[in-house]
Amino acid sequence: MTGQTIDPTARLAHIARFEPEIRAFTACDPARIEADLRTAPPGPLSGRLVGVKDIIDTAHYPTGYGSDIYAGHRATGDAACVALLRAAGATMAGKTVTTEFAFFRPGPTTNPFDPARTPGGSSSGSAAAVAMGMVDIGIASQTAASLTRPASYCGVVGFKPTYGRYALSGVKALGPSFDALGTITPDVATAIAADAVLAGPVPAASTIVPRAPARIGICRTPWWHEAEDGTRMAMAEAERIFSAHTTVEMVEMDEFAAAADLHITIMSFEAAQALAWEYQARRETCSPQIVGLIEAGRAITRATYEHAQNEAARLRTRAAALFTRYDMLVAPAAPGEAPLRTQGTGSPIFSRLWTLLYLPTVTLPGLVGPLNMPVGIQCLGPHGADETLFEHALWAEALLPTRPLPSLLKS
Amino acid sequence: MTGQTIDPTARLAHIARFEPEIRAFTACDPARIEADLRTAPPGPLSGRLVGVKDIIDTAHYPTGYGSDIYAGHRATGDAACVALLRAAGATMAGKTVTTEFAFFRPGPTTNPFDPARTPGGSSSGSAAAVAMGMVDIGIASQTAASLTRPASYCGVVGFKPTYGRYALSGVKALGPSFDALGTITPDVATAIAADAVLAGPVPAASTIVPRAPARIGICRTPWWHEAEDGTRMAMAEAERIFSAHTTVEMVEMDEFAAAADLHITIMSFEAAQALAWEYQARRETCSPQIVGLIEAGRAITRATYEHAQNEAARLRTRAAALFTRYDMLVAPAAPGEAPLRTQGTGSPIFSRLWTLLYLPTVTLPGLVGPLNMPVGIQCLGPHGADETLFEHALWAEALLPTRPLPSLLKS
Repeated sequence: MTGQTIDPTARLAHIARFEPEIRAFTACDPARIEADLRTAPPGPLSGRLVGVKDIIDTAHYPTGYGSDIYAGHRATGDAACVALLRAAGATMAGKTVTTEFAFFRPGPTTNPFDPARTPGGSSSGSAAAVAMGMVDIGIASQTAASLTRPASYCGVVGFKPTYGRYALSGVKALGPSFDALGTITPDVATAIAADAVLAGPVPAASTIVPRAPARIGICRTPWWHEAEDGTRMAMAEAERIFSAHTTVEMVEMDEFAAAADLHITIMSFEAAQALAWEYQARRETCSPQIVGLIEAGRAITRATYEHAQNEAARLRTRAAALFTRYDMLVAPAAPGEAPLRTQGTGSPIFSRLWTLLYLPTVTLPGLVGPLNMPVGIQCLGPHGADETLFEHALWAEALLPTRPLPSLLKS
Repeated sequence: MTGQTIDPTARLAHIARFEPEIRAFTACDPARIEADLRTAPPGPLSGRLVGVKDIIDTAHYPTGYGSDIYAGHRATGDAACVALLRAAGATMAGKTVTTEFAFFRPGPTTNPFDPARTPGGSSSGSAAAVAMGMVDIGIASQTAASLTRPASYCGVVGFKPTYGRYALSGVKALGPSFDALGTITPDVATAIAADAVLAGPVPAASTIVPRAPARIGICRTPWWHEAEDGTRMAMAEAERIFSAHTTVEMVEMDEFAAAADLHITIMSFEAAQALAWEYQARRETCSPQIVGLIEAGRAITRATYEHAQNEAARLRTRAAALFTRYDMLVAPAAPGEAPLRTQGTGSPIFSRLWTLLYLPTVTLPGLVGPLNMPVGIQCLGPHGADETLFEHALWAEALLPTRPLPSLLKS
């Protein structure tokens, strides 16, 4: 399933076969993929297919930001992340479905494990395309839970780096204090390979190997009462597995209880600024969800916003102190299994805290809930220690069950 | 000269008269200005004309980022800052000249005090247009010294807020860790009026009045040996004036000596990421200056970059400690008077430190050098205390000589 072993023709047939049901792409041009596979420069990502979330500019495909305002919009050039991947030999498979401006209005993508269920938002298309083996690397983004949650719902690996690690040039802003690019991949090794390209202007040699954390902290978070059976089962199972190999302790998280509200305050205020033109000039073409977000932001005073920013900075200091005791934290990635599509894209509650704290997070698949649908867990490391987190995530991935495969792929 | 007292017809004639010599605009449409003046919504900036630096997206004018790659480029919508100003009643006068990608390749703008001299870079057009009274508010940006230096060279007020205060949605990135929007205005009061709009999604009521700082620190900075006579004269005069009214002390700044190099490291690394597409796909259409910047960035390892970021964070903590003693700092805004255009846009050395420290800065005009050309001084306040800095800047502005007027405007 890691792609480089599948020949391009088979891969294109695979996409053509499953795309009508999965609807992961807003644009995908087989002729261009074939041409690009032939002409891509040699590099560490040669032969890898990449799905690019459609809030990210591309020269060769339209970029619609999930918004009716930008239907058919053509950017002049590729976003920095796309340019870096292409220069490293990767080939774009196309643009993947996002919710409107990476917020809540869902696109058409279905969950590969059950077409009645959501793949999550907002990196819906990237997560579903990776789960189905249509692409090797899905470029995703997260302002609240937009990467971690679809990775959890689709049974794949999600990596959101330390805030600021990947360049955002050419990416539509939603809440700039939190907006971060990341990847969705079949496994941690592929996330590491992509990171070596996306973190630099020049691809770096990677020497990351699995390493056991000396002490893991289990963070049920202050929102544990919102965890459903799937997440409770997954967290219990992860704790059982890891504690057979290293020290595992429960972490008291009450002092972080304000984080979710702080995150909402900062994100809403900033979205009202970032989307000022869309609101002032094209309000009738925005969804009620986006108008609601912006109007909530407009009702927040600058003083309230700045207070929230100061509190967020204080919590980041508190989080740094946690890592003097724990080398890795394990937390829920979502409230449970993917909800029905009629219920939306799921709750971001279990990611708001970590996004606010700017910590790198790897969401790992392997566990399932009562419906036999995927449920991820997320592993977190200290701010700026992305390589160390990868080492621990490789270790954890090897202990967890193999990621579940959509039934469509088992035949 | 504050604009709202000049009727629109006279203002348009004024622009038409002086633009052929000043060349402040990349695009300026008198018919549109007249129409917009009639139809602008009522608001706190009604009747004010705004010049928008051409690295900032606009729906109604081309946006070229100062780059041949983007000649004639049309953005779909207005950048957030433009939308906020328009919603507050302001009218766009057009797009103002920038250097290429807000870096070093100069545009055609001349200094209003001497056409053989540079207006500074990169916010060249905004500074010259404000100095000439063509616009009331120039939107500018700063990644190194791109706002402070042209304000100094053109004898106008420059305000770069605390990093992050103004939304960057729709602004071309150069070095995202430093990129900041700000304003160039005829006086501090106009900067305050613009700030009340740009800092919110909703315009705020302002209660800012002049207030004397209890203790001023004079920061010659570790680069004082690069100060020319004009800056030495201006700093001595500012010290003499302020010390007649409050306590003024010299600040030892040696511990900040590494800041300029740290700034260059971070900016170069990030420019190589942010402009990855331009470098990979359009290198032959980039200036040698931009290619040089990107290639310098590509030679920096991620470890070196992260070390520089950590050192920068440490210096920000040291700067916060300075403000326990001083409520305002005063520092050079540029090495001296504007150099000849044949020599480029001037040295950014006296702003790199403050940009790195994320501090708000107001550059004040009034003083002149041996050539009788303007030389600014910059006033700095603590991180996040932009309103307090405005109070102190109003006090300082009232004590300094009235800003010099270009000879073209004296007739």
